[in-house]
Amino acid sequence: MQRKSFEGMSCPIARSLDRVGEWWSMLILRDAFYGVTRFDDFQAGLGIAPNMLSRRLGGLVKAGLLERRRYSERPARYEYLLTARGEDFRPVLLSLLAWGNRHFAPEGISTFLADEITGRAAEPVLVDANTGASITRERHVVRAGPAASERMRARIESSRRRAQGARESLSSR
Amino acid sequence: MQRKSFEGMSCPIARSLDRVGEWWSMLILRDAFYGVTRFDDFQAGLGIAPNMLSRRLGGLVKAGLLERRRYSERPARYEYLLTARGEDFRPVLLSLLAWGNRHFAPEGISTFLADEITGRAAEPVLVDANTGASITRERHVVRAGPAASERMRARIESSRRRAQGARESLSSR
Repeated sequence: MQRKSFEGMSCPIARSLDRVGEWWSMLILRDAFYGVTRFDDFQAGLGIAPNMLSRRLGGLVKAGLLERRRYSERPARYEYLLTARGEDFRPVLLSLLAWGNRHFAPEGISTFLADEITGRAAEPVLVDANTGASITRERHVVRAGPAASERMRARIESSRRRAQGARESLSSR
Repeated sequence: MQRKSFEGMSCPIARSLDRVGEWWSMLILRDAFYGVTRFDDFQAGLGIAPNMLSRRLGGLVKAGLLERRRYSERPARYEYLLTARGEDFRPVLLSLLAWGNRHFAPEGISTFLADEITGRAAEPVLVDANTGASITRERHVVRAGPAASERMRARIESSRRRAQGARESLSSR
């Protein structure tokens, strides 16, 4: 499969996917959050081919999500540690985890996010840190910023008009 | 590239990725949230090959994220609408958007999430709906649930021990 790079795209979602938008990269990050740091441990946990793992780890280092550090001189051995940028990816994985548990766990929950203080399951939801309000489609919409291309601005504006139209037709029913 | 299916894996992140873990599927969902519904509009917006788009849309319909509905009898034409499960994917995309804006927008912001009431940019963060507490690595950890395999349970427990060790060595410094 030919992979198209999204680097030329200015959408932040596309840019993020350009770094991590692929099963293995996300699962490597997941395991890094579990505390895995060594090549052999990633490989054993994921059952991934060594050349593929090597490529994915290299990509995550290049994108600044993992840092490669030598932990043994002789033989030379390296470990991979989450950077601040990598740590900051956790909400994406936790949102995926919550969504997967809600929709694709017919036989019950295999992993979940727990609150270590209360001992109960946490239910991760998005709120706006500025207002504390829950993020909803009614109140929160994607808008074009100063660096948007003309094309993106036009797309987003037409999307806002569509959404407004839908809201109005709903409320006039 | 040979793609491995994660269906056999019980991890909810792996299962979610099995449905959407691929650039195009995520970008199709993003555009669906912008209000795009028709094949030609997805294609024009994404610049994706028709056969690839057709396959991805089919996959999203099969996974229950999109619903295919006929909007014209003659010629037969279809539109693709987000289902409740698809709508519920929005926090994942918004987490990606926020992360991309924080880390990969050197020339400025091209799209952002806006609060329609205050008119200001929203800053989406995860909180626990049960307690209102911010989700942090210190307080919230992934644990094995009742449907976890023995192997997964062992992995997660060793990860908790590692994290605890790291916390203790930090606090004893």
